[in-house]
Amino acid sequence: MVDLSAPGSDATVEDSGSDDPMIGEVSEGRVLRTILARTPAGRDALLGPGDDAAVVAAPSGSVVATTDTLVEGPDFRAAWSSGYDLGWKSAAVNLADIAAMGARPTALLVALAVPKDRRLSFIAALADGFRDACAALAPGCAVVGGDLTVSATLMIAVTALGDLEGRPAVTRSGAQVGDDIAIAGEMGVAGHGLSVLFRRFHRDGVAVPVDPAALDEGEADAIAAQLRPMPPIGLGPMAAIAGATAMMDVSDGLALDAGRMAEASGVTISLERAALGAHPHRALAGGEDHALLAAFPAGMLPPGFRRIGSVIAAAADTPVLCDGEPVGPLGWDPYRDAGADARR
Amino acid sequence: MVDLSAPGSDATVEDSGSDDPMIGEVSEGRVLRTILARTPAGRDALLGPGDDAAVVAAPSGSVVATTDTLVEGPDFRAAWSSGYDLGWKSAAVNLADIAAMGARPTALLVALAVPKDRRLSFIAALADGFRDACAALAPGCAVVGGDLTVSATLMIAVTALGDLEGRPAVTRSGAQVGDDIAIAGEMGVAGHGLSVLFRRFHRDGVAVPVDPAALDEGEADAIAAQLRPMPPIGLGPMAAIAGATAMMDVSDGLALDAGRMAEASGVTISLERAALGAHPHRALAGGEDHALLAAFPAGMLPPGFRRIGSVIAAAADTPVLCDGEPVGPLGWDPYRDAGADARR
Repeated sequence: MVDLSAPGSDATVEDSGSDDPMIGEVSEGRVLRTILARTPAGRDALLGPGDDAAVVAAPSGSVVATTDTLVEGPDFRAAWSSGYDLGWKSAAVNLADIAAMGARPTALLVALAVPKDRRLSFIAALADGFRDACAALAPGCAVVGGDLTVSATLMIAVTALGDLEGRPAVTRSGAQVGDDIAIAGEMGVAGHGLSVLFRRFHRDGVAVPVDPAALDEGEADAIAAQLRPMPPIGLGPMAAIAGATAMMDVSDGLALDAGRMAEASGVTISLERAALGAHPHRALAGGEDHALLAAFPAGMLPPGFRRIGSVIAAAADTPVLCDGEPVGPLGWDPYRDAGADARR
Repeated sequence: MVDLSAPGSDATVEDSGSDDPMIGEVSEGRVLRTILARTPAGRDALLGPGDDAAVVAAPSGSVVATTDTLVEGPDFRAAWSSGYDLGWKSAAVNLADIAAMGARPTALLVALAVPKDRRLSFIAALADGFRDACAALAPGCAVVGGDLTVSATLMIAVTALGDLEGRPAVTRSGAQVGDDIAIAGEMGVAGHGLSVLFRRFHRDGVAVPVDPAALDEGEADAIAAQLRPMPPIGLGPMAAIAGATAMMDVSDGLALDAGRMAEASGVTISLERAALGAHPHRALAGGEDHALLAAFPAGMLPPGFRRIGSVIAAAADTPVLCDGEPVGPLGWDPYRDAGADARR
C-alpha cells in the first residue's frame, strides 16, 4: 500500500547492505525474497506468489476459508514469543479452524504489519515457523501469498484455505441428543503455560524472557504448548469420515466452546469430570490448545478421539454440565476480558 | 484470541448498554452482530459466519486468493478516512487483485484489529463500506467470515477469494512482443487526491479533516478516488475472455507496475504519452486507482479498455519507455519509501 507517513519525518532509506538490517532499511522485494526462499510451494498451489493473487486447487468445488490474527500486546509478548513461535502459532490456529470443519488445509495467506525497526532475521524466523507448522501439522499446505506493510504494532493476520474432499462441512450446530462428546488434542495445557508465563516471567507489569533452566518439565511443556500449539489437524478430516455430527476447535476453553456448540445445536453438553484429566479446571477454562471438540453417534469415536461426555436434551440456561452441575462461562472473550487479569 | 493485556491494568468491562459504546466496553458477540446485520450473505457463500470457517463455492475446481492490509499511519489517516471509506477501500483493493487475474470475486474475509476506544458506530460504518463496495463493484461477493481483535493500531486485513469460471488465470508474465498495452479505469487520480490531502489538509505534520467547501470539483473527485477507489472489477473477467495475455492492477503507479509486468514477461513496455491523459506524470507516478493494466493481441481490446502503448522486445535495463524515453521508477515501494515525502 502507499505509505502516508508524514512528509519529511524520515529520510528515504536505501538498502543498507547489512546482513540483518531493519525492515525500514530494505526494499519490500528483499523482505519478500527472504520469506519466499523459506516457504516452498504446496502441492495445492496452482499459482504461487508473484502475481496479484494466488490460485489454489479446490477439487471439491468449494473452498473452506478462515482468518485469525495475532496482535502484539493482546495476543503475544515479544519477550516470550520468538519470530519462529509466532509463525508457528499463527499457522497452527488457522489450520485448526480448517480441520474443525472436517477439511484438509491447502494454503495459507499471510498479512504482516511489522514495525520498521524489526530485523530481517525476525521475518526469516516467522517464515520458518509457517513452513515448519505446515510440514508438521498439515503436510502439503503452504504459504501461497501475502502482504507486507509497516505498522507501529506488530500484527500477523493469516487466512487458511481448505478442501472438504467431497464431504459436507461439519458445523458446530449438528450435535444430536445421545451423541458422545469427544476431544482430540490437549485440554488446558496451553492455558497453564500462559499462567506460568505470567506468574514466573512477568515483573512490574512487563514480560521478561523465559529462563528455561528455571522450569520443570511440566512447565516447559506447558509453555511450549502455549507458544507452539500442536492441534491434531489430520484428525479433523478423520472425524468427518467417521460421521462427526458437530465439531469445532477449542480456542477459548472447553466450558465456553462446548457452550457455543450446545447453543448452536440446541442441546446441553454433559461433561464427565473424571474424563477431563488431572486438572479439570484447567481443561474447562484454559484456551489455545486448539483441540478438536466433536460429537459422534454413541460409540462411533474414531482413533485419536477420547470420550469426555454426552449430548442431552437442552436444559434451560444450562448449555454445559460437568458431573451434572452447571458450568459457568470460564473461558475467554477477548473483547469482554481485554485488560483483565490473564492469570487463570 | 486470548488477550494478554497486562494483569490489573484495566477493569473487566461489562456491556455499557450505550447506543454507541467503545469497542472495549462491549462483548465480541455484540461487535460481530453489528457487522453481520450489515453484511448479507453472498450467492457463493455455502456456509457463512458462525462456524470455525466459511465455505465458499469454487465451481472451477480452483480458487483465486489474495490479501491486502490497510494500517493506520502508513496507509490511511483517521482524519481523512471515515469508517465507511476504509471498509470500501479495503474491499476495493482486494477485489481489484482478484479481477486482475481474470477472476470473478466470490467472498471476502475481514481481520480487524481495533483500538479499544473506537466506537461501535465506526465498526458499523466499516461494515457498510464493505457491503456497498461489493454491491457496487462485484455484485454477489460478500463478507463470509472474519476475526476481531483489539490493538493499539487500527488495522484492516482483507482476504478476497474468486473463481476463474473455467478460464486459466491471467498472470503478469504473459505479455508478448507486438501486443497492445491497455488500461481500464483511472490513471493518477487517486494519487492526485492524496497530494491534495497532504497539501491542503495536513498542518504541522498532522492530518486535519477535509473541508468540502474548500475544494473545487476536480479536487473533490480526486479525494473521492483516493478514499473510495472504483476499480472496474467486472472488466477483469471480460479481459480474460477477450484473450488478455497479461494483466495486473495498478496499485503503485503505472511506471512501477508496467515495469513489473515487463520484467515478469521478459519484454519492454512502450507507452505513448498522448494516451496518458491530461496529466501524464500523475498517470505514471500515481498509485491506488487500481486500474487494470493488460496486454492484448494487437487490435483485440475489449470494451472498457483503451490503448496506451505496446509491447516491444526487451531493451536492456529499460522495462518501460514513454515516447521512446526510459521511464525511471516513479512509483511507490512502501518499504523503501516509508516516511518519505508522499506529496507527489
